[in-house]
Amino acid sequence: MQTEDMIMISVDDHLVEPPDMFEQVIPAKYRDQAPRVERTPEGNDVWVFGDAVIPNVGLNAVAGRPKDEYGVDPTAFDEMRPGCFDVHERVKDMSAGGVLACMNFPSFPAFSGRLFAACPDKDLALAVTQAYNDWTIDVWCAAYPERFIPMALPVLWDPELCAAEIRRVAKKGCHSLTFTENPAALDEPSFHDPHWDPMFRALVDEGTILNIHLGSSGKLAVTAPDAPMDVMITLQPMNICMAAADLVWSRVFKEFPTLKVALSEGGTGWIPYFLDRLDRTYDMHHLWTGQDFGDRTPSDIFRDHILTCFIADPVGLALRDEIGIDNICWEQDYPHSDSSWPEAPEELNRMAAKYAVTDDELNKITHENAMRWYRFDPYSVRPKDRCTVGALRAEVVGHDVSERSMSQRHKQRSNISLAEMAANATA
Amino acid sequence: MQTEDMIMISVDDHLVEPPDMFEQVIPAKYRDQAPRVERTPEGNDVWVFGDAVIPNVGLNAVAGRPKDEYGVDPTAFDEMRPGCFDVHERVKDMSAGGVLACMNFPSFPAFSGRLFAACPDKDLALAVTQAYNDWTIDVWCAAYPERFIPMALPVLWDPELCAAEIRRVAKKGCHSLTFTENPAALDEPSFHDPHWDPMFRALVDEGTILNIHLGSSGKLAVTAPDAPMDVMITLQPMNICMAAADLVWSRVFKEFPTLKVALSEGGTGWIPYFLDRLDRTYDMHHLWTGQDFGDRTPSDIFRDHILTCFIADPVGLALRDEIGIDNICWEQDYPHSDSSWPEAPEELNRMAAKYAVTDDELNKITHENAMRWYRFDPYSVRPKDRCTVGALRAEVVGHDVSERSMSQRHKQRSNISLAEMAANATA
Repeated sequence: MQTEDMIMISVDDHLVEPPDMFEQVIPAKYRDQAPRVERTPEGNDVWVFGDAVIPNVGLNAVAGRPKDEYGVDPTAFDEMRPGCFDVHERVKDMSAGGVLACMNFPSFPAFSGRLFAACPDKDLALAVTQAYNDWTIDVWCAAYPERFIPMALPVLWDPELCAAEIRRVAKKGCHSLTFTENPAALDEPSFHDPHWDPMFRALVDEGTILNIHLGSSGKLAVTAPDAPMDVMITLQPMNICMAAADLVWSRVFKEFPTLKVALSEGGTGWIPYFLDRLDRTYDMHHLWTGQDFGDRTPSDIFRDHILTCFIADPVGLALRDEIGIDNICWEQDYPHSDSSWPEAPEELNRMAAKYAVTDDELNKITHENAMRWYRFDPYSVRPKDRCTVGALRAEVVGHDVSERSMSQRHKQRSNISLAEMAANATA
Repeated sequence: MQTEDMIMISVDDHLVEPPDMFEQVIPAKYRDQAPRVERTPEGNDVWVFGDAVIPNVGLNAVAGRPKDEYGVDPTAFDEMRPGCFDVHERVKDMSAGGVLACMNFPSFPAFSGRLFAACPDKDLALAVTQAYNDWTIDVWCAAYPERFIPMALPVLWDPELCAAEIRRVAKKGCHSLTFTENPAALDEPSFHDPHWDPMFRALVDEGTILNIHLGSSGKLAVTAPDAPMDVMITLQPMNICMAAADLVWSRVFKEFPTLKVALSEGGTGWIPYFLDRLDRTYDMHHLWTGQDFGDRTPSDIFRDHILTCFIADPVGLALRDEIGIDNICWEQDYPHSDSSWPEAPEELNRMAAKYAVTDDELNKITHENAMRWYRFDPYSVRPKDRCTVGALRAEVVGHDVSERSMSQRHKQRSNISLAEMAANATA
């Protein structure tokens, strides 16, 4: 397949929330208490919510930046590429990168919305969560419905309220919920506790997929405080396989046989090994652990329920048959530092050629699986022949995608330390 | 290759220490303080050392037991297969399983010997550690020098003493040291601290390999206290990739370019993905993290320094070229519950045939790599034609390898809980 003929849907990108987002959607009685952006004396923009101050509004929003500046998060909106927080600019960046559509995870509330869950006033927390979801669905995504898969934040502190929110946003066409990879790590009941059943029930009733993003337990994979930053970057996807094991062996998939879960930014190359390990564990140990999948295996259960995705993962492509070709999506990770924007389609197509991926297989990975798992239909708005990499790029000829350096002020900020990052992550 | 013509060396088995081990080797002044076995009123055998009581003398010593009894550790020597703790019986079990030689990790002192390191009397701790090593090398291994790769415990609390012990046992022909996958998890300085340099210096001077066994950080991969046991079993190998990342990115391999490290019981199927992730992390991030490997890549560094092994790992065999055929060994894991003893050679050969492993490749995996990395030469004692699976089995025709159930007393003991296991592991 020619790169220009590919249709690209990314199931894991990120938005940086613009400062005015709550003004448009929060009920008047909570307006003064909603999260707001403040500029510090040092010239940084921070989100403030109650006692919480979130220092890195950019959360690694480095798209379009030279690689030697990756370590310094932009800490003010005017240091960031506008596509991070401005939906019209984002769509231009997507088109320039050949990407038809994407799903965006939150930044300042954390992937699972745990910032809001930590608010002691639960009425306020719910109002803010719902306002966030309304803004995401009705403002950001609705501006270009064929370009965004909407995703909602959960109500982490109350499964019944969470179920109600899943049903509320489903009525607006949102069938995707972000969640944590391990609620026990956030001092909530684990996946093994019936506590979460109302949420799972609402998910299967509404055909909504649960998305578990790496790092969403709030715990980084850190070996030691003095380990080089590279160690943490390498190990980031590890927690996600803990979530996969937790769910496969839990009662959740037994009780909710149509539930779907996505391992967001989890990669794919480790999965064949993981599936073998699941099946060998079952074979060697189920007689004493009491696990019983009837005539099926744990790897069958994985493929029935779990969607995987990758940014660039040659091993996963080589072993696509072992993973399951219907269980693999592509992701771009814009604007984070693992992204290959705006050359990601070329990178994927080179790998696909190397591993003799057929056109049918490539179409599943680039967009068909995403459309099916997320119940997303862009063609009802935009004809398919205008959805290709080539067609989208032709619409934004001249859009500037060249690298832009940060200001000197930012370059002088020393790199954040691993210990500091870990502290932020678990705060 | 016919299974009977294979030569099998296992780089990860386990011994259960016999009650009389210290009597033979401890200096007289420490005889009363050495670890000893006591029988509890319930009829269990426990090791006692100072205030520490180690309840599971068998540590999962379930070889030759029906699978529905795997969950209950034998807690008395008379419930265990004698091959666990009696070297003459062990050699018969090895021959019946077609295994020429093996390296054995410790049981009651923990994989890294941290039980001894926890002793407040450091003179006593050193005497016990040295006695343990003397017994392992001079008694257990020396009984059949062509059948065992000797391995020593480290002096965890003092790198200079550890270096001296490495040099002392090297004079006896021992070139293998067990260690922890993460010293920081044991409240010692991390791999990134020059603290350990005397140990690394002694290792490279003596050509001794450092062995990092999964679980040797004392931390199990546990998602939640109420998670099913299967979750922990599945995830056990995860910590070991943290150790691999820790070491590849550390200064250790840069400072000690001939150092060798084995990831014991770490599996192999995850490694191609891990190597890709190392190289992508380097490509995307080294300009700001400051890593510099010159004209080499992190995956080159991995292959220069790290030995991997597997029990049964089809993905690792399929992707052996991506791992490096000189970096893969086989292990049997006798007498633990992941072992396929006494049919392990057949299991490996079936997989090798499935993935078209050549005879040359299979010889590297089954024994040649182990002989080279561990500087082990069984042929000087036993002619090569007597080292094969077929020749060894012929020597012990009639040796009973049938399954044996535990006594009723043991079956009635309820399964140990995951929380209890985690507490033991971190004790």
